[in-house]
Amino acid sequence: MTRTELNRNRNSNSENSGDGDGGGGGGTTAMRIIVPLQGVVQGRGGLVLGSVIPCAFFYFLQFYLKRNRKNDSGSDDQNSGSSSGLPDRTRSQSELTGLPRSLSRILLSPRNSVSVSCRANCVIKGGDSVYDLGLKRVEEDPYDELGNPDGVIELGVVKNNKFSLEDDLVSENPKEELVSDGLSISGIASYEPCDGLMELKMAVAGFMSEATKNSVSFDPSQLVLTSGAASAIEILSFCLADSGNAFLVPTPCSPGYDRDVKWRTGVEIIHVPCRSADNFNMSMVVLDRAFYQAKKRGVKIRGIIISNPSNPMGSLLSRENLYAILDFARERNIHIISNEIFAGSVHEEEGEFVSMAEIVDTEENIDRERVHIVYDISKDLSFPGLRSAAIYSSNESVLSASRKLTTLSPVSSPTQHLLISAISNPKFVQRFVKTNRQRLQRIYTELVKGLKDLGIECTRSNGGFFCWADMRGLISSYSEKGEIELWNKLLNIGKINVIPGSCCHCIEPGWFRFCFSNLSERDVPVVMNRIRKVCETCKSPN
Amino acid sequence: MTRTELNRNRNSNSENSGDGDGGGGGGTTAMRIIVPLQGVVQGRGGLVLGSVIPCAFFYFLQFYLKRNRKNDSGSDDQNSGSSSGLPDRTRSQSELTGLPRSLSRILLSPRNSVSVSCRANCVIKGGDSVYDLGLKRVEEDPYDELGNPDGVIELGVVKNNKFSLEDDLVSENPKEELVSDGLSISGIASYEPCDGLMELKMAVAGFMSEATKNSVSFDPSQLVLTSGAASAIEILSFCLADSGNAFLVPTPCSPGYDRDVKWRTGVEIIHVPCRSADNFNMSMVVLDRAFYQAKKRGVKIRGIIISNPSNPMGSLLSRENLYAILDFARERNIHIISNEIFAGSVHEEEGEFVSMAEIVDTEENIDRERVHIVYDISKDLSFPGLRSAAIYSSNESVLSASRKLTTLSPVSSPTQHLLISAISNPKFVQRFVKTNRQRLQRIYTELVKGLKDLGIECTRSNGGFFCWADMRGLISSYSEKGEIELWNKLLNIGKINVIPGSCCHCIEPGWFRFCFSNLSERDVPVVMNRIRKVCETCKSPN
Repeated sequence: MTRTELNRNRNSNSENSGDGDGGGGGGTTAMRIIVPLQGVVQGRGGLVLGSVIPCAFFYFLQFYLKRNRKNDSGSDDQNSGSSSGLPDRTRSQSELTGLPRSLSRILLSPRNSVSVSCRANCVIKGGDSVYDLGLKRVEEDPYDELGNPDGVIELGVVKNNKFSLEDDLVSENPKEELVSDGLSISGIASYEPCDGLMELKMAVAGFMSEATKNSVSFDPSQLVLTSGAASAIEILSFCLADSGNAFLVPTPCSPGYDRDVKWRTGVEIIHVPCRSADNFNMSMVVLDRAFYQAKKRGVKIRGIIISNPSNPMGSLLSRENLYAILDFARERNIHIISNEIFAGSVHEEEGEFVSMAEIVDTEENIDRERVHIVYDISKDLSFPGLRSAAIYSSNESVLSASRKLTTLSPVSSPTQHLLISAISNPKFVQRFVKTNRQRLQRIYTELVKGLKDLGIECTRSNGGFFCWADMRGLISSYSEKGEIELWNKLLNIGKINVIPGSCCHCIEPGWFRFCFSNLSERDVPVVMNRIRKVCETCKSPN
Repeated sequence: MTRTELNRNRNSNSENSGDGDGGGGGGTTAMRIIVPLQGVVQGRGGLVLGSVIPCAFFYFLQFYLKRNRKNDSGSDDQNSGSSSGLPDRTRSQSELTGLPRSLSRILLSPRNSVSVSCRANCVIKGGDSVYDLGLKRVEEDPYDELGNPDGVIELGVVKNNKFSLEDDLVSENPKEELVSDGLSISGIASYEPCDGLMELKMAVAGFMSEATKNSVSFDPSQLVLTSGAASAIEILSFCLADSGNAFLVPTPCSPGYDRDVKWRTGVEIIHVPCRSADNFNMSMVVLDRAFYQAKKRGVKIRGIIISNPSNPMGSLLSRENLYAILDFARERNIHIISNEIFAGSVHEEEGEFVSMAEIVDTEENIDRERVHIVYDISKDLSFPGLRSAAIYSSNESVLSASRKLTTLSPVSSPTQHLLISAISNPKFVQRFVKTNRQRLQRIYTELVKGLKDLGIECTRSNGGFFCWADMRGLISSYSEKGEIELWNKLLNIGKINVIPGSCCHCIEPGWFRFCFSNLSERDVPVVMNRIRKVCETCKSPN
């Protein structure tokens, strides 16, 4: 706001600089203040009117603008509301104390709600043509020869399903065999809503609640289903940021973000490195620095992407961490994408997974709109082939744009029906989540123990499918080259495929991501033997 | 190229204009020619060195640039190969004669192959990290305790499928009921390639061949499967054009292009109107004009999107039409997206559907790379809920980028397996396509006859699910407003939902798209009665 005002003043100054009116005749107050400076330059209008008064005005204007800008520096360029100067204090507090839940956040002045991207706004407006209005009418009141003979007949949308529903062919065709149980023919033959059937959304909300140990109850109407977590993250990137904007991403991070966030949306990622010395915990100081450095370069930061449980470390973000991130996002007026795709796979007995949804539930309404959660049903269900994920948001603009965008990456009807049957039974879901946790815990313990015996330590992992192994002692040179060399040995000598830290944008070489969920307990000794073989070709680990 | 060169010269001129060197001391030839003009202005360097020589050089430079630009005008800005002047001749020929297959095309000098978008190139390069290399190795040589104990163990990619495959839970869980026939548990539990299993691609290629009456044999390795035609068109837009570039689209066109082509890619559409006076046939003259007008405005045209059978008219493009479009695309060095999603639904007995694939098959290799076909398996199979479509291309760059992008809109495993079972049986496919054609033909004939009895004529439709009805006689004013008024009456009085021509970007008001495939024969009289009711509220049709 302040900057725009300054620009406006500057423009009106240059526009009027040619008219030679030294006596301050302009239309607006701003013009009256600045235009008389011509009198100073041109020596017209006398000492007081042409020089002293305008100079004094100009000085006070500059002083006023400078002060306002300073106050505003804690907020984002766009949509910053009234600034009380408190954010700066809060920031320096968290800088000093690491990740404390400062009391001052409650004192923060309320902000305007955080905006979505310009292109998301176009999508929201773009879809409401008569085409969509007609569709909606048919949905509300569909014609049926017997059941609703006065309903609206659909001659608009492209369908040919009467054929498969009516024709003799169906009873003799091979599809009939496929759809014997659960999957009815109509479940394949008709368009289902791209963003998910309400029945499925209810089942997913239930599954998510179970995964979070019922600490938060998810509202099915705030869910948008997409064909996989990659697509969910892409849709959110598109909705929250315009091309050239950026997200802050603490590293090491998921290798998939380069694809999901950047490829098609033109959005940038600014990596914020976490270090082994801090146990790879996020530092608010470093986050802040990254934010301001980007701002200095003219890059608009639109949000921060966190993953909880973390990919690749498998660690959980504490309640304090989450509050600190929320404070940070509120102070900078940016969004949070909370990637919780492994929420149902917390394997540590005492591990407490806290969803960002729970955090905003305890907050005043003002922060709900900036938090967007990504959840992956197929991963937690151990059926990745289903490729079904969800966006959970309280931001109506994000929900509206996302629903429209799912046309471009929909969950197919058979998959929707399969999922409904699979997760609608609460008893099964409970048993499934429990058994899955136990199994992951067993394999994790085995693997970490095995690696320890070989001299390879892992950071503590309590959720997700990964452990994060410190193999710095095995690399020939402390560089990415050394890391890739070791990766090559693991693949070609040990014949195991792991992910080197550089793929996760880890700035310290020598760390590797092991996805243990893919192993059975019988596999663990095989893996250990193979790693031992590789260790023997390297210098001995410290 | 030429323009860039000119700009470069201008820049170096302005950059150097301040250094006062009148004697032609610059580094490059261009600088030596232009910089001495300062001598002319400043009157330095003597008559010959400061004025005559530089002026003569400058004149020849301008002449040279002008000539080169003229020669280049027949081709696209990027990648134009050697220009022989022939393209212009061909163009004026086709302008004069409508849509003739000119012999001169064989004489055309070969062009450089048409390029893909810059961002597609980034995607192609972007995915080849060690992450992908590892994946590939596992794919080639996967570990199996008994079958392949020396294979590569996967600890990289995120999987948890051992759980569902091994655990007792599977035998008692509700999913087991769902996957009794056809769909094996492994078909859900594992990642399948996002761009489609080879088995499915082979089945789709067979289905496409059957749909084109075996006039062309499709190569499964050139197929990329996507979650629906919308996603296929979006991926192609992304791969062929950069943000701000445009596609030519003859109108009336599919209402979906606004979403598929524009929303996420930032690509523009330039509509090229076809008129009822020409039976809504594409005019090469108008296409050409649109191309040059766009070029004049600085908009780079990257391709043309055609639909065959046409949406909304249901007409087929003749062999001559297709050759003319190919000639046009070759001369302008642009791509062709041929939307053939209703290829299997040609209902007219004598209607000959010619795929663009067949046209390029008969051509020299040079044009294969610019043609990309979109095919919708779920539509022709009358199971839209399956949401499975395909891109068919001979362009390796497009295939490579598209394969990577399908991660963001994959076909789920259950749907892939359902499709394989459904269309792998050639006898079923033959019978299906035949029965479908006959059914569409019956309904189409009934509907058109019914509309004719009400005084509403349709253009001739021989393929697809639509007829294109001339209801100009029923609109109160010859404007979009009048059209929407009639649409409102049809929806609210007649209770039928049709698509007004304005949604299809038809520039003549009063045309409507009727999707008849959704009707059974019993429904037709009901529809007619409802339209009659609407007719009675309007002025009587001509």
